[in-house]
Order: sequence, then C-alpha cells, then structure tokens
Amino acid sequence: MFDVAIIGTGPAGLSAALTLKLHNKDIIWFGSNELSDKVGKSEKIANYPGVPMISGPDLNRHFREQAKEMGLEPVDKRVTNIADMGGTFMVLADNEMFEARTVLLATGIAAAKGMENEARLLGAGVSYCATCDGFLYKGKTAAVYCTDERMEHDIKYLEEICGKLYIYTSFGYTTDAENAEILRLPVRKLDGGMKCDSIELTDGTKIDVDGIFILRPAIAPSTVMPGLEMDGAHIIVNRSQETNFKGFYAAGDCTGRPYQIAKAVGEGNIAAHAILERLSEIEKENK
Amino acid sequence: MFDVAIIGTGPAGLSAALTLKLHNKDIIWFGSNELSDKVGKSEKIANYPGVPMISGPDLNRHFREQAKEMGLEPVDKRVTNIADMGGTFMVLADNEMFEARTVLLATGIAAAKGMENEARLLGAGVSYCATCDGFLYKGKTAAVYCTDERMEHDIKYLEEICGKLYIYTSFGYTTDAENAEILRLPVRKLDGGMKCDSIELTDGTKIDVDGIFILRPAIAPSTVMPGLEMDGAHIIVNRSQETNFKGFYAAGDCTGRPYQIAKAVGEGNIAAHAILERLSEIEKENK
Repeated sequence: MFDVAIIGTGPAGLSAALTLKLHNKDIIWFGSNELSDKVGKSEKIANYPGVPMISGPDLNRHFREQAKEMGLEPVDKRVTNIADMGGTFMVLADNEMFEARTVLLATGIAAAKGMENEARLLGAGVSYCATCDGFLYKGKTAAVYCTDERMEHDIKYLEEICGKLYIYTSFGYTTDAENAEILRLPVRKLDGGMKCDSIELTDGTKIDVDGIFILRPAIAPSTVMPGLEMDGAHIIVNRSQETNFKGFYAAGDCTGRPYQIAKAVGEGNIAAHAILERLSEIEKENK
Repeated sequence: MFDVAIIGTGPAGLSAALTLKLHNKDIIWFGSNELSDKVGKSEKIANYPGVPMISGPDLNRHFREQAKEMGLEPVDKRVTNIADMGGTFMVLADNEMFEARTVLLATGIAAAKGMENEARLLGAGVSYCATCDGFLYKGKTAAVYCTDERMEHDIKYLEEICGKLYIYTSFGYTTDAENAEILRLPVRKLDGGMKCDSIELTDGTKIDVDGIFILRPAIAPSTVMPGLEMDGAHIIVNRSQETNFKGFYAAGDCTGRPYQIAKAVGEGNIAAHAILERLSEIEKENK
C-alpha cells in the first residue's frame, strides 16, 4: 500500500513528488523517465522564477537531475484505470494493480477528449496498451490510432501479431508490412454493442475490426477515472486541488489554463500539502 | 496610467512581473530591491522544481539577477492604501499616487492582523510611514511600533523630530536618546474618537500620545484595501486569483497556505494570465 500514487512526470507531478518525498511518504510515481515531454520540446522558457531564460531540454534535464538526487524514480507504466475503493484507490497500470491511500493526477492536457464510445467500449475491443492486449488479436483484424511517436514500436509489434492492421498516426508513419494499411483520415467514432466491432473515419467510412488500440501521450482523465467531474477537457478542483473524489487530487495542465510550468509547479505543491493533511487524517481515523 | 500595479517582490510578485513583462505590459512594481526577505532568510530549499537544493540567499540572488535581466526594477515605496475608482485603481505609496487598470497584491503574510482600531484611525494619528508623516509630530509625543529591523533608521529619524517617543520593537532596539522611552510590551489597542490620542499595551497600561507610527514588513491587506474579503488573515480568491474586487488579484502567502515558493510562483503566474485577459477585456470595452 502506497501513501500516494502520482500519475504524470511533468512539472506538477515532480513538484508534488519532491515535497512528498521530503516528508518521507511512500510514493509510486507513474510516467516517463524522460519526465516532461512537453517541457523537453519547449524552445525557450523566460518566465519561470529562479531559472533565467532556459531551453526546454535544459530545464527538463535539471528536472531529471533533481528527481534523481532526491531518489525519485518514475515507474514507466501507463495508468489506464483508477477505482475508488472507499478509503483507498486501485490503480491499474499496464495490467498491474497498485493500491494507494491518495492519488494525484498530473497527466497534462490530453490532446483529444476521446472518440465517441471510447469510454464505453474500453476493455471491450478498445485497448490503450499493445504490450498488454496485443496477443488477443493474433491473426485478427485490428486498428491502431497513435498520436505519440515514442510508441511507434507498439505499432510494429501489432503488425507482427495481427492478421490485418489499419494504422492511423499523427506523425506520418510508413511501413512495408503486407498486412498493414495506412489510414489517411483519423478515427472519429467506435461502434459495437457489447464489443467494438467497427470504426468510423472522419469522412464517414466504416471499417470492420475486431478491436482498436488507441495510443496517445495522455488518456482523458474521465476515461481513467469514471465519474470525475470535468469542465470540458479540464478536471474540476477546489483551492486544495481536490477533485469530487475525496483523497483524489489533480494538478497542472489537466486542471485548466494557463498551461505554464510555474502554474503546474504551484498546483503540484498545493496538492502535496493537501495530501499530507489527508494522510494524517487517515492515520487518525485508523487509530 | 499603468496596466498593472504589483505590490510585493516575493516569488509571487516576481512570477507575475516576469510574465506580464514578457507580454509588454506597463508595470509598476512596489517592493524592496532585495526582493524576497523571507526567501533570503531561508536556510535550504529542497522542493522547488528546476533548482536543486539551494540556500535562500542564493535563490533570492537568482531572483534578483533574473528580474534585472528582464528589465524589472521594483519601486522601493511602501503602499499604504488602494482605492477602487470603478474601472481603475488608485495606489497610494509613500504619499504618492499611482493609477493602474489592475492590481496584484502579493505582500506575503502579515505577521499581525492589525491592532484594535488601527484601520479606523489610519491617517488620523496612525501612520505607516515616518518619512511621510514624521514632520507632523515635531516636538510632539508619539509612539513607534516596529517589527522590521530594516526600518531602524525610521525610529532614529522620529527620535530627532519628536518631543517624546515611546518605542516598541520586536528586535531589541536600544537607544541613548533622552526623549526616548523603550516599551517592554507590545501595543495591543489604539484609542481615540476622531484621532488616535492614546495607546494601550498588552498589560492594559495606557499611554497618551499624539500619534503612532506602525512599521511592519507588511500591512494587513484589509487595511490597505478596505472591503477586501478575508478568511482570517488570508485574502479570499477564486481559481483565477481574483478577489471580490473586479480587476484586483492576490497571490502567494497572502491567499493562504501552503506558504511555499512553488505555490507562490504558481499563483503569480495564474494571476498574470488572468490580468492579461482582464486588460484585453478593458481594451475592448474602451473601443
């Protein structure tokens, strides 16, 4: 049982992790060892106090060094689902279960809010993880929708497994695989009753599939945590960064604009302190 | 007319100033050229992302260098009063008037919430500025209540002017001046109808005076801006850092715990973006 599961290794997640680590809490921290992809791709950052004009890659390197010095190491697993068990949370990451007393979601802003029927069909022909579920589609027809170039290896893996693979990427992926077909238009909608059995492109074209893999840098928060109160693409939080679930917090871009490092860092810090309070509350309750 | 008056040179004020400066806004920034006294007095800071384990003086030096590089220079005047003129704000600093379209209060947390009757008698025998009002007490009896060692020179100035001076300091000030008398207990209450005519110490002792100078590192926000909605010593703000006055924002320690650099920096950033929105709103209204 962890004190806190932090999901996301951007500035908000890092800020919270640093503070909680200082307070000797048991943390499981999910995300990339690279930390912030978004910071790493920024050209120049001029308005982050304490760090004069710096390139994104340099600041992200500072972040990594600092995390390492503090003994913080992210677990590079993709969190796909969280469940409130009443008092604790179950976090599903690459099909492995983790239990934590509190959760901080700091996953940034999802580029898309999800396809039509995506949330309903998740786990029923819709998967976020090729490594976990690829074997289920051996010799079958699948689609893969990928907007994260770092996951290209997952597409290649699916090409090896599937009988037929429809591929849409946002980054111009090409392939020689005979069983692969590149889609020119993105997927708009998923169809099927108990299980996803076809996909629909933005021009209305329908394609029959046995399933689809959706590989994005971030999954929409309300898909990960069903019932989470949202305002459009943003998670609704109070001044302590708490969501509508007690013990479940959010910080950084996922809670709204401005999409800025300073804002994310501040919210991560506030969330960490709220989590410290919540943990001591839990401790008292259990006495 | 300034676009924005920022009051306070701690991490919140700096964060906002950096962002607003990047957006080419006309800023007047009130506070010490030393920037953050509180950061400067911190021993070690371990949880500020991007800056591994650093001493307070070093981080404060980074802050100063960064402000300078960005062409930001604080005006070392003490803001004692702000008035909402309906659309713009009048800011009174060391008896000089400044006009601004928006205001950001980032004054940190006032050690005291103010003495009894302090707000009511301000400007009527109660002054926050020896340089401004000292001459009014030439040959008269005054008291000085000082909790900021950097203002010792103001006490010396008052000793030269006043006929009799009662002195309370929190830092063990001593003097040989014949007209000076050191008080061993702090002032608790001010008395007087139209004008302050006596002070009361914490043991109930009353002393007749013609006026009192109250010299603190920060003035209680509700004293500076009468009508400001507070929750105890903290200014109430919404998720955009706006107070109950439209166009009037607050950020950093003055809005509540955690009293942390990351939190202050985040709130300053959020406030700056809300101010940018407000300024473009004003621009549209004036078209």
